[in-house]
This record gives sequence, structure tokens and C-alpha cells, in this order.
Amino acid sequence: MTLAVRYTSARTLDTAPAAASEPGPGEVELAPAYVGICGTDLHIFHGDMDTRVAAPAVLGHEMAGRIVRVGPGVEGWRPGDAVTVMPLRWDDTCPACRAGHQHICQHLDFIGIDSPGAMQQRWTVPASTLIRLPGTLPLDQAALVEPTAVAVHDVGRAAVKDGEKVVVVGGGPVGILIALVARAAGAEVRVVELNAHRRLLAEELGLSTWDPATADITALVQRWTGEAGADVAFEVSGAAGGVDTAVDVLGVRSRLCLVAIHPRPREINLHRFFWRELSLVGARLYDRGDFERAVTLVADGTIPAQRLITKIVPLTEAPAAFEALESGGDVMKILVDCTDGTRGAAV
Amino acid sequence: MTLAVRYTSARTLDTAPAAASEPGPGEVELAPAYVGICGTDLHIFHGDMDTRVAAPAVLGHEMAGRIVRVGPGVEGWRPGDAVTVMPLRWDDTCPACRAGHQHICQHLDFIGIDSPGAMQQRWTVPASTLIRLPGTLPLDQAALVEPTAVAVHDVGRAAVKDGEKVVVVGGGPVGILIALVARAAGAEVRVVELNAHRRLLAEELGLSTWDPATADITALVQRWTGEAGADVAFEVSGAAGGVDTAVDVLGVRSRLCLVAIHPRPREINLHRFFWRELSLVGARLYDRGDFERAVTLVADGTIPAQRLITKIVPLTEAPAAFEALESGGDVMKILVDCTDGTRGAAV
Repeated sequence: MTLAVRYTSARTLDTAPAAASEPGPGEVELAPAYVGICGTDLHIFHGDMDTRVAAPAVLGHEMAGRIVRVGPGVEGWRPGDAVTVMPLRWDDTCPACRAGHQHICQHLDFIGIDSPGAMQQRWTVPASTLIRLPGTLPLDQAALVEPTAVAVHDVGRAAVKDGEKVVVVGGGPVGILIALVARAAGAEVRVVELNAHRRLLAEELGLSTWDPATADITALVQRWTGEAGADVAFEVSGAAGGVDTAVDVLGVRSRLCLVAIHPRPREINLHRFFWRELSLVGARLYDRGDFERAVTLVADGTIPAQRLITKIVPLTEAPAAFEALESGGDVMKILVDCTDGTRGAAV
Repeated sequence: MTLAVRYTSARTLDTAPAAASEPGPGEVELAPAYVGICGTDLHIFHGDMDTRVAAPAVLGHEMAGRIVRVGPGVEGWRPGDAVTVMPLRWDDTCPACRAGHQHICQHLDFIGIDSPGAMQQRWTVPASTLIRLPGTLPLDQAALVEPTAVAVHDVGRAAVKDGEKVVVVGGGPVGILIALVARAAGAEVRVVELNAHRRLLAEELGLSTWDPATADITALVQRWTGEAGADVAFEVSGAAGGVDTAVDVLGVRSRLCLVAIHPRPREINLHRFFWRELSLVGARLYDRGDFERAVTLVADGTIPAQRLITKIVPLTEAPAAFEALESGGDVMKILVDCTDGTRGAAV
């Protein structure tokens, strides 16, 4: 019998035995090794997504692990292969899919939200979701491939170019990853973040940071850019003030990439969009190309994944880790170790 | 002595004699024939732009006329040439200009707002602002070239392509011109407009219209597009509800082109931008290429300029025309005829 972390109701997780099921045609059974706790998982834990999530629900979509069993008709994969999962299933028939944007399919199944996720010791997924990991990449670091793919997608949506000046508003895991990916694309980057611990970590990674509580960010950007304004801003904070900052720092014809989720409408200075001919682009999830690029960036050390992992907790302590994360505090990424007790069998 | 229409204070225009000045080096003196009254002129008339406009101020920037005198060093232009004016002067040194976006120069002089405009019988402007008109194009129709250049710019910013489905929210002069230019680019277009007179005119021009007071626009667009949503929406209404409509009708990866001026921040459904990976682009003014394309479109009848001109009033009646326009009503474009009494001399 294997264990799973389940969301049962608002602010309640448990760990419960889960029956393993034979992988069907086109499916593989995985043994997840490490699974990251994402902001979305916290939203579910808070009860904010109860209309979408059918409890009891197994959470988790940032993972790395190995194949245990391969179902009928699956080619190119073998037990023991190290993989991560692009946790998307689309219908291939809706207008979004037909236009080639399967990742924003109008009937998207996001595995880990809409269907059971990775925070368990056995996980059956379609083989089509698998992304191969290099054998040299430790699986804990590989659990950061999924959020890195988000960052690769965001930087691509913003079309960041060599030499551009980029402001990242919000220095949590995704903000830091965006900053690192943008820097790898040749941009000069500044990270705006309230939390001192997160600023310190960003600085340790060679990123310059600003504290919006004590500095006039717009004035700093004006000075930094010779009054031109930034070329790109990423809104990763989810806060109203973050949106204002991201708009205010931009120069003419500059781009705001909207990454954070804003459940409620926000007031936006549309006159600035008109006056400076700004653009805003929404960015959501990723495609296979983003994932493959993310594997490369994590594997070659461009993303220093080890530095972003604050701690690793055993699966049975995942509920406590969620509660600790909820109180905020000085953390970046927490991983759940699912290997306990099954490692010998799985790897 | 020649006459000028002057803004003197909120809700007050007069007509006053204006001394003609010899054109300086690089300048030309024009005899404006027809000058359109623009929404921006009405904003000035309302007193909304008193911090920017130094009264007494000669209004007007949508014009066509002929050259009267040519200053020293001006080549390629002769008295009698039919011209319109791209009413922009930039500093060529600011970051916007250096990036090639002179029309959004950080120190832009918009002639007709920041410096004296065309609503007078003699007007001296830099020769660099002149756009040649074909001799076959009547000057009253040519007064529509400037707003058509706005529409050309907007359609270009939205990158409208052949076969796309486009919703224009707001069917005033600029909205109708955008609809016509988008149609000329091969798009299928729907115009959303509250005013029955404007809808009727649009229908007479072969444009399909919807009345947002009586129809569920989002539902209509879903049906029209087979649930895909529109490819492009233009927000030309300036109203909060117009912004909502323009966002709601868009399909995945679609573009909202922001044309109207929203002086105050507006609430925007940012979640929709994230979820559907929408884009928003601000569009302001035009460049020389837009103007030259606009001349072609007006001259070849793609823009049926004559149909958009509701009436032509003599210069001395311009103040009354502003007051009539202010009360709204069933008008599209009103032109001021500046030729009275000077036509013989100028043309």
C-alpha cells in the first residue's frame, strides 16, 4: 500500500493509503520522488478553489520521479527512466487547441488540480505528459523544472531580448525564476520584493533587488534607465500595488507581462497604456518547448535549483508544511519527499 | 487680416483676427480649407485640458488646405500645393525618439493642442509636417485623412489580419474609421454602438452593428465566432462598460487595442488576461507611413469620407458648432470651412 497527501476540506490535509492501479493503454505509473508545494496548492489548501477541486483530492504538479510500470502501447519509455511531467491534458478540439494553443485549451485538465496530482507514492499519468530528465540531474533539483518552465514561458511571452532592462515585481519562487531566465536571455534585471529574506536570497544569486517599502521604485527605474523606463516588467506579486508599480516603471512601447493571478478586477492606469503605447500580455502555464528548455536550464546550473530549495519534508509531514507555509515567513521552495519507504522498490 | 477660432476659457470660443507671420526657415504658410472638429477639441472646449492648453489657443488638427507661401530653405513644395499636416513636432533626442517612436516623443508638441492649430485662415507650420494630397481629392474629404491615419495606426498596432473577426466598441468617427480600415485589411467586423443614428450610418456603409443596450454582446460574439471569441477588439468608447465588453468578447491569445482615452484608472478583469493569454496594446496617434496610407484610403474611396461628414459650417459659426456637438446628438464629423472670404487669395 502506498501513501497520498489529500486535500479533504478547507485548511485540512491528510495522508491516506492509495490503491495502485495498473497503468492503462498509453499510461505510465510513476514513483514521484520529490514534489514541490506551489502557490496554487496553497490556494487549494485555503479552500479558495473548492468549486474546481473535488475533495478528497491529491495535490501536487511540480515533481520529478521515475517510471515504475509502462502500460500497453507506450513506446520509448522504460521502468527506471527519470522523468518530470507536464501536467496538462487538452481536448484537441476546442478553438484554442485548433489554433495551436493546447496549453490554454478551453477544457484543460490540469493534473494536480482538476485530476489527481503527484503528492503520492504512485501516480499514473498519460505517457504523453512525460518529459525526460538527464540521468545526471538530481531528482530534488528536477522538481524545479515545472516552475522553471513557467518562467521560460513568461520570458518568452514578454519577448525579452539581449540588453533589455527588466523589472520583476515579486520575488517569490516564480519571480526569482523569471529573473534568472531573463538574465540568461541577456537582460539586466531588478527584483522588487518586500520580504527581506527573499531579497537576500536573490542577492546571493547575483540579482539586484529593491525594497518597495523603503524606496521609490519608479524613481529608481528612471535613474537606472536614463529616464527611458524599463523595457519589460513582470507582475508576479498578485497585489494591487504591484500592478501599479509594473505599469509605472515602463518606458514607451514597453511590455508588461502578467504572471500573477488576480482573482478580482484591478484598477489599471489605461491612460499610461495609451500615452506610452504600452503592451500587456497575459502568460499562463507552458508548452513542451518551454519544459524542454527548463530541463536544460536546471541541468546546466543556469537555474541554481539547490539554492531555491528551502527544505525537504517527508510525505507524512506535508500537512504540517502547508500550515507553516500559510503563515508566510522566510521560505522559498519546499519539497515533499515521496520516496520514504518505497525508494527501494521504485528507483 | 484673417480670422482664427480661439479657445479662451472653459466653454468659450471666439473668432478673432490673427496677424499673418512670414514663414521662417523651413516653414510654410498654409490656407486651411476645411478643419474637422475632433473629440480632443471638445475636451479642450470643456476645459478638461486647461493645464496643457495655453489660452487663447487656436484649435484644430484635422485639416486640408493649400500652401500660400514657402519659407527659406523649403524644397519640394510650391504655393498652391494641396496638403494635409501630420501635426507632430518631436525633439529627436528623448529615449522614445532614439528608439524610433517619434510620435510618442516624451516632449511631443502636438500642433493644435500644445501650439496653435489649423482652425484659422492662415497657418504656419514646419514643412516637415506636410503630407501631399492628390489633386483629385476634394479638400473637404481630405480633412478626414488625419482621423483615418489614427485608424490605420490602430489597426496596425492590433496587427489585424485577413479573415480575422474584429469587434469595434464605439461607433463614433474613429470607431467607424477603424472598422472600415480593418475591413479593408480583410477582417470581418462588428461595431458596438449605443447611438441609433451612428448605427444606421455604419449599416449604410455596409458595417454590421450591435446595440449593447438591447443585446448580450458577449453571447452574440460567441455565436458569431463558434465559441472561439473575437480575434481583436478595439476599445474606442472611453466608457468603463466598453472596456468590459472589449475584454469579454476576446478569445484565447486575442488582442485588445486601446484607442480611447480613459483619464481615470479602470477596473480590468486581469484574470481573463491570464487565463486566455490575452494581449492589450495601447495605440496613440500615427507616423508618416500611417498618414500616407490614409491618403490612399481616402482618395481611392475605401474610406467614404463624404458619407462621414455630417455638415460643414463657416469659420464664424464654429463656436456654435462646438456647443451643438457638446449636447451630443446625431452627428458624425463636422468640418469648419475656413475658406470664406480668402478662398480667392489662397487657392
